[in-house]
Amino acid sequence: MGAFAERLAETVRQYGPLCVGLDPRWECLPADLRRFSTDGPLLFQASQQVRQFCLRVLELTRPYSGVVKFQSAFFELLGPAGMQVMQELIQTARQQGWLIIWDAKRGDVASTAEAYAAAALTGWTLNGQTLPVWDADALTVNPYLGADALEPFLAAARRVGRGVFVLVRTSNPGAGLFQDLICEGRPLYSHVAEAVARWNAPTVSASGLGDVGAVAGATHPRQLAELRQSYPHLWLLVPGYGAQGGTAEEIRQAAFRDDGLGAIVNSSRGVVFPFHPHDPDWERAIRTAAEQAQRELTGR
Amino acid sequence: MGAFAERLAETVRQYGPLCVGLDPRWECLPADLRRFSTDGPLLFQASQQVRQFCLRVLELTRPYSGVVKFQSAFFELLGPAGMQVMQELIQTARQQGWLIIWDAKRGDVASTAEAYAAAALTGWTLNGQTLPVWDADALTVNPYLGADALEPFLAAARRVGRGVFVLVRTSNPGAGLFQDLICEGRPLYSHVAEAVARWNAPTVSASGLGDVGAVAGATHPRQLAELRQSYPHLWLLVPGYGAQGGTAEEIRQAAFRDDGLGAIVNSSRGVVFPFHPHDPDWERAIRTAAEQAQRELTGR
Repeated sequence: MGAFAERLAETVRQYGPLCVGLDPRWECLPADLRRFSTDGPLLFQASQQVRQFCLRVLELTRPYSGVVKFQSAFFELLGPAGMQVMQELIQTARQQGWLIIWDAKRGDVASTAEAYAAAALTGWTLNGQTLPVWDADALTVNPYLGADALEPFLAAARRVGRGVFVLVRTSNPGAGLFQDLICEGRPLYSHVAEAVARWNAPTVSASGLGDVGAVAGATHPRQLAELRQSYPHLWLLVPGYGAQGGTAEEIRQAAFRDDGLGAIVNSSRGVVFPFHPHDPDWERAIRTAAEQAQRELTGR
Repeated sequence: MGAFAERLAETVRQYGPLCVGLDPRWECLPADLRRFSTDGPLLFQASQQVRQFCLRVLELTRPYSGVVKFQSAFFELLGPAGMQVMQELIQTARQQGWLIIWDAKRGDVASTAEAYAAAALTGWTLNGQTLPVWDADALTVNPYLGADALEPFLAAARRVGRGVFVLVRTSNPGAGLFQDLICEGRPLYSHVAEAVARWNAPTVSASGLGDVGAVAGATHPRQLAELRQSYPHLWLLVPGYGAQGGTAEEIRQAAFRDDGLGAIVNSSRGVVFPFHPHDPDWERAIRTAAEQAQRELTGR
């Protein structure tokens, strides 16, 4: 498997920068899918319905995007059955050729981070066999614990040609409480970004981009543009497009390098739930939304 | 169910402040438990062995502790089968009367944090039924995303008499990279601690402690003591005792209030793995280590 940065560059060249955010919120699912069709405990039944919906989303959006981001929370909410469905969906997405980001925002002390990194990226080696667990191409991680806590993720990614996206400036309205605190003359997030760029530097490959990227919300276009300008070698994962308020126009101006690379733009509600739960034509709505998002983000 | 802070106070009065850290690291398991005894995929088989070991740890340490902390990473590493085992173990621990901390260090934007909080604390309400998912008494959370991202955890905890521990000063050697950055005159972790104390204030109950606590590593005794002095109403969850380097003497001096409450002290490797994998008497080693940790931490 080639370097993550290069695989991502190839995907963005082919499909544009849209990242489909698979956040299967139960209350948003089409009404006909919220009726149970299997037996078993309620959480198992709900997981099967979520599975069906996500499979349709993967099929419907595949022509317009090459990157899918699984939001772990909505699968964890369904318990072990939901985690099983997430694992199966990741395998299916892999067979369909998607690049897979597991949005789990993990972070812990080093010996624990090693377990998270093995689970997410390298698989777990037991009796000489390497067993894939969640098997993502990239994982989102939280920087609060510092460098030694992030190193196991970076090392795991390096070993198997995968990537890591570190939270820098998140898309939520209250992100600034700590991220914007002025530390030694500049905001905390800018210290984090600088560290991310340092970790990324040794991984920069042919595209001029590396395997350690940054999460930077579209809801803060000024900071997004500043990060883009300061760190041309960083892949940016940009949440907050659409439902959270960031416009395609703002993102196009702020997030990309001149070669059109350097950012992937996540849409969860906008692309995955562009319908009323009772709209029988929800599949067409998803297809249309994905096509439009692709068009808007490439500026064509 | 009473307030989390009061249930924790009652537990610490009865058993002392030892928190058993259930980090089932496969390579540390007793050798006889690393031989598979079931059929099925390797990760399922490994999960069953981990289950057996953890059940023994819960039984052996119960006389010396009333709080168990599940480190999610080591169960996630075993895939859906491991998550299933974690869920079952939490149920068993609840029947045995443990207070349960789920150490998952979650944190995400508000609408996603709601899903994590429901999964961890309140359960998920579907068709009028509330289904427990991971069902912990308290969850560890990461503050980097700010107040609006933490609010769903605080609200969920409040609704069901449960608690939240926010990472403030973690126990890893490199914790200071961001946590010690000087922001507006004092370190970042001190800004986080102040926010935690603010969120905790409305929850303070009879014991003078509240439901929103802080994680503060024993490996930084000066900062630990300073947090204790500054914030008498905060429960502190103190990792880093034993294997990571913090001594019982230092912790006793730094972490507790005069009434002996205010902190729980986690021991993972020290209490759970105080034996060589080939030691046939590993059960006695665990019992002895738990008894000794209880004694050391209460200073008797």
